[in-house]
Order: sequence, then C-alpha cells, then structure tokens
Amino acid sequence: MTIRAPAEIGMRLEEVDTPALILDLDAFEGNLKRLADAARGRVRVRAHAKTHKCPEIGKRQIAAGAVGLCCQKVSEAEAMVEGGIADVLVSNEIVGARKLARLAALAKRAHLGVCVDNADNVRELEAAMQRAGARIDVYLELETGMRRCGVAPGEPALALARAIIACPSLRFAGIHAYHGRAQHIRAVEERRAVIKNVALQVKHTKSLLQEAGIACPSVTGAGTGTFVFEMELGVWDEIQPGSYAFMDWDYARNEWAPPMPRFEHALFVLAGVMSRPGPQLAIVDAGLKASSVDSGMPAVWERPGLTFTRASDEHGWVEIAPSAAAPGLGDKLLLVPGHCDPTINLYDWYVCVRGGVVEALWPITARGALY
Amino acid sequence: MTIRAPAEIGMRLEEVDTPALILDLDAFEGNLKRLADAARGRVRVRAHAKTHKCPEIGKRQIAAGAVGLCCQKVSEAEAMVEGGIADVLVSNEIVGARKLARLAALAKRAHLGVCVDNADNVRELEAAMQRAGARIDVYLELETGMRRCGVAPGEPALALARAIIACPSLRFAGIHAYHGRAQHIRAVEERRAVIKNVALQVKHTKSLLQEAGIACPSVTGAGTGTFVFEMELGVWDEIQPGSYAFMDWDYARNEWAPPMPRFEHALFVLAGVMSRPGPQLAIVDAGLKASSVDSGMPAVWERPGLTFTRASDEHGWVEIAPSAAAPGLGDKLLLVPGHCDPTINLYDWYVCVRGGVVEALWPITARGALY
Repeated sequence: MTIRAPAEIGMRLEEVDTPALILDLDAFEGNLKRLADAARGRVRVRAHAKTHKCPEIGKRQIAAGAVGLCCQKVSEAEAMVEGGIADVLVSNEIVGARKLARLAALAKRAHLGVCVDNADNVRELEAAMQRAGARIDVYLELETGMRRCGVAPGEPALALARAIIACPSLRFAGIHAYHGRAQHIRAVEERRAVIKNVALQVKHTKSLLQEAGIACPSVTGAGTGTFVFEMELGVWDEIQPGSYAFMDWDYARNEWAPPMPRFEHALFVLAGVMSRPGPQLAIVDAGLKASSVDSGMPAVWERPGLTFTRASDEHGWVEIAPSAAAPGLGDKLLLVPGHCDPTINLYDWYVCVRGGVVEALWPITARGALY
Repeated sequence: MTIRAPAEIGMRLEEVDTPALILDLDAFEGNLKRLADAARGRVRVRAHAKTHKCPEIGKRQIAAGAVGLCCQKVSEAEAMVEGGIADVLVSNEIVGARKLARLAALAKRAHLGVCVDNADNVRELEAAMQRAGARIDVYLELETGMRRCGVAPGEPALALARAIIACPSLRFAGIHAYHGRAQHIRAVEERRAVIKNVALQVKHTKSLLQEAGIACPSVTGAGTGTFVFEMELGVWDEIQPGSYAFMDWDYARNEWAPPMPRFEHALFVLAGVMSRPGPQLAIVDAGLKASSVDSGMPAVWERPGLTFTRASDEHGWVEIAPSAAAPGLGDKLLLVPGHCDPTINLYDWYVCVRGGVVEALWPITARGALY
C-alpha cells in the first residue's frame, strides 16, 4: 500500500514525476537556522510535527536546537518515536480508553507529554498510565480566546492542576497556551495585541498556581505567526512553531516586520501541464488531492503572469496573462501551497532538492496518522 | 509506512477509533443496485475509481454490472489492475514520457483506455506504446463548456481523430464528453439544459466523423449529478458515475427529482468528542485532515441541533443548539463529508459496517496515487 516515490536520487528537478512534493533543502535549512537564531538563549524550541509528519525533518530540527517535537495525535507520536524521536509532547487532548492505552504504551518508550482540559479525562489518563506502569508529563491547556479546547484560565485551571497533582502517574508539567487563530491575523500589531491578552491570562493562572504552592515548570505554546511576541513577553518557556520550516502562501500574506525572521518558501508542489485548451489557459495535473485549498489556492512560483485560479479533484486551472510566457504541454510549474499542513498530509514522500538536483527522498511516515 | 486500521472485524461501531472512514454496507449496496437498475438496458456503467480508490469497491461495482472502471491517474490505474480489475479507462490526458511508459506497461496487463486532446500527445502516446509493444484504446476528449481539458468539438476533433487513426498502436475508441461543473448545478432543469448542449456538440462531432468514414465505437462520460440526462438524450453509450456509491453532502444539496434514483448517504467520518469547552460547543477530533472542506463543512448525521461549523487541521467545531441533546466527552458522531473524493483520499481504510458491527476492512490502495 506504499506509494512509490515520484523521483530518484540524482534526478534533475524537471525530471521528477508530477505532482510531487518538493522540499528546497537550502531554503529549508535556512529556515531552521533563522528560527534557531531567533530563539537562542530566550526560549526552547519544540517544533510541531503535525506540519511535517516526518522523523527525518524532526531529527534536523532537533539537530538545530529543538528540545523535541509536538504532535497532535497518538498515531503521529507513534510514527515519530518509531522514527527515532525521543521527546514528544502531544499538544492536544487524548480521549478514550483505546487511544489512552496506546499513549501509555508509548510513554514507556519515550519522554512523552499530553494536554488536558477536563477532570474526567485526567482520571481516565491516570488509569491508563497505571495499567501500563507508565508516567507522563501533563499540561493544562488554557482556553485563551480561540474558542477551541482548553480549561478556562484562573480558578478552573487551578482546580484541574490539583486534579493532575493528585494522580501518582502524572507529572504536572505546566501550561499549554496556544492561540491558533492569531497566527494568521494579517497586521503585526493586531497579532501582538492578541498574544498580549493571552499572556495576561497565563500570568494570572501562574500566579494562582504559585499562591497554591504549585510549581509550574513550563509554559509552552506559540506558532510561526506569533512566536516573536510570546518571546518578547517573557511568559513562555517553549515555542511550538511548525510552518516556519516551509512557509506556505497563507503565511506569506501576513505582515512581517522585524524582529520576525523572514522565512523563505521551501515547500512546493511540482505540477505538470497536461492540457492547453486555449491561449490563456493551462490545465495542470495538481488539483484538490495535490494541494489543499482550505486557505486559498496555491501560488505559481517565479512565473510572472501565471495565476492558479481554481482546482477540481485532479486538475488545476492556471490562467495566463497576455504578456506572460506561456507554459507548453508537459512543462512543469512549482506551486507554493496555500496551507502546508494539509497539503503535506496528501503525500508519501518529500522529494528533497538542492541546486536543481534530487538529493534525498524522505518518507512522510505520519501521513494519514489521524487517530 | 502503512497506517493501521482503526478497527477490527466484529467490533461495534461505537468502539471504532476516531477519526475513521465508515462505509455503511447496506446503504452502499443499495446505491450500487439503484444505479444498476437505472442503467440496465440503456447504457453501460463504467464506475469512477477516482472517488473510491479501492479495488474491493471496484469489484463490487463490476459484480453489479459495470463493464470496468475509470481512473484519473496512471498510478490509480496501476493500483486497480494490481487489485484485480481487468478493464480501466484513464479518463484523462497522460503527458510525459515517464508516465506514458508506465501506461504502456500497464496496457500489456489489462484492457486500457486513455483520453487525448492534443496531437503532440497522440504522437508521444504512440511512441510509448510502440516501445512497449502495447496497444491502447484512445478517446477524443471534447471540451464542451467546462473550460478544462479537451479538444474543441467539430473540425478540431475530427483532425485529432485522424491523427489517432494514423497510429498503429492506438485503437480509436470514440468520444469522451464529461461536464464536471454541471454535476453540482442545483436545479434539475438547469443541469438538464447544460447536458443537452453537450449532447449537441457530441452529435455534431459524431456526424463529422461519420461523414469522414470514421467509426465512433463509443461515447462515454457523465457523473452522478447528470447521468439520467445523458441516458435520456440517447447520445452516450457509457456513463462514469463515482459519487453515487457514497452520496456526499454537496450532492445532497442538489435538487433530485424522478427519474433520478435517490442515493443514500453511505459514507461517514466517525469523529470523537475531545473537548467540551462550553455548553453550546463540542470540539471533535476530525478537522481538515479528516474531512475535505473544499465543498463545505461536513454535516452531523442524525443528531438534530448539532452543526459542524468550522475546521482547523485536527479539530472540528460542533455547535450545540440550546434544545439539542449535547454529546459528552468521548461520544462519537457520524459526519457526512462535504465532498467524498478528497475525503476518501485522506484515509487508508474503509471500516465497513453493517447493523452497527464492523464486517470488513477494505484497504484504499490508490489513496495518494497522484501521478
């Protein structure tokens, strides 16, 4: 059931079969360095594997200074541990005996953390860990305004911390505070304002914990769009960016200003022109199953006057401006995906390219790791 | 790299791990029968495997009367032939020597067809078939108003037919005429009007072929939303529906009226409630990576007052009306995907359920078959 890679090592980029997921290694390595430079001496980096789904990438993030990885699913964490990653935080709630049994089994193989927002879930987690004879780091997830998971800051969070501490198999590890919606607020100052508000809620909860004599070892959170604010506010100990390694087109639409590092586009979908039904239109072989459109259409890379306007399941429409150099049948175009995470999840392989030549093929072993 | 199935045979539906792709076998088998009954004695059925990506399903469609399957990609066709399907039409243009060499190799293992819309591509196809010592059915794809692939009807189509006939390894098999955009036009009469217009263009091209002494063995095309019109117009010999087997929520928004069969929802995403951050909100563990949102959010099945309103990568927001029965933490909900094709492409397994019990697990072997 494993899909073969669409390329071989040593091949030139233009020979790679289409559609293919291309990783530009120079840009990718530059992005890892930009983040490491920005974070060094200020916060720990725990890069998010929900974006890349690939232990090979996780290992390079750790080599660049990350303390470990985040995952969103137990099966994703299993793939990372299987691939050699020793420290994984499941930055999400894990509910149900079947999932928790797998989480507990994994906690015996690696340093594992998980988030909670509910006392029943804490009891279920403790029971699973006891049955397995395992221990796990447990973070309070705070609901700080994105209206998703999380316990309310303040007293409800304090009560949940007490519930965690009462469980012998759970190590209370601190607070998880992540504001997903803030990541794509376009204006820098609006993004900063949202994170300032999150910081107030984290500080308030930390002070309640302190008054109650409960140590809060770590505050973790933050993504590619906001981590500079979490760093400057001094409330977070650890950041969890994922998209920084790739930079998708949606992030490129954000306003970026110093001190934010300028990440480069490192991730592309290579698409082939399969039809030229008219002078102003090329149809490419990459549609909804090759590039997720939830955050907008992909952009055509470095081909002025070509615009990707529409996708059906297996086809993409590329409109050609009258002044543009029109691609011929069989020509290949690089697309910058609108949203990197769900796009990567469509592929089995990164085709890693340097200087126009395929240097490596990395399997996306957590692709489809949903549960 | 193969993801384990989230269920075991004999398990009850509520025990299946989440998210999971659920196939209700009674509804699915009913849909196969509804289509077969509608088509019997009128047109051949060549069901589209781009939707299901699964030889097990293809075999059942053939057992219900289909003459073979359609695919969109060479790798999809490879997975179907590998899975035991003997007759596959690649209802798409295949461009480039690498893809064509694979197509030619496959044409030696099964009865294969392909579409063309360009004379250069016809020459490239002939060269690949000659090199392999293979033969293949070749269809003219007509551009009939959806502005995608296809040669213009009339003289350009006739010229391309002559180019095909001049190639000794290509068997001219007829006309491919499919109007994808028409499938989701909501009003029955508007959909009928579009297909009537397509039929005029097909007839015109067929008459030109006839005048030129070129036999047109078959006209193939049509999808779930329009095939009754293609049948009533008498111009098509073969229909290619895919979604009829599953019925997604986008198709459910179409107006349906006799003589269209009423297909039942047979495909679901089973999602688990992972957080209950407030009385009117449940967060489920199925987001963008579990149900494609390109054609709208999934619908919550048979739970009045629950509405799936928003998805992020791994989370879904389910709003709870004040009057509704609220789901508890760990409860499981069935979702009807907005668009079946790209949703199925996210999964490795169909969890096939009958009467609330898992009866079979079918591998989605062409999942991710992009090239």
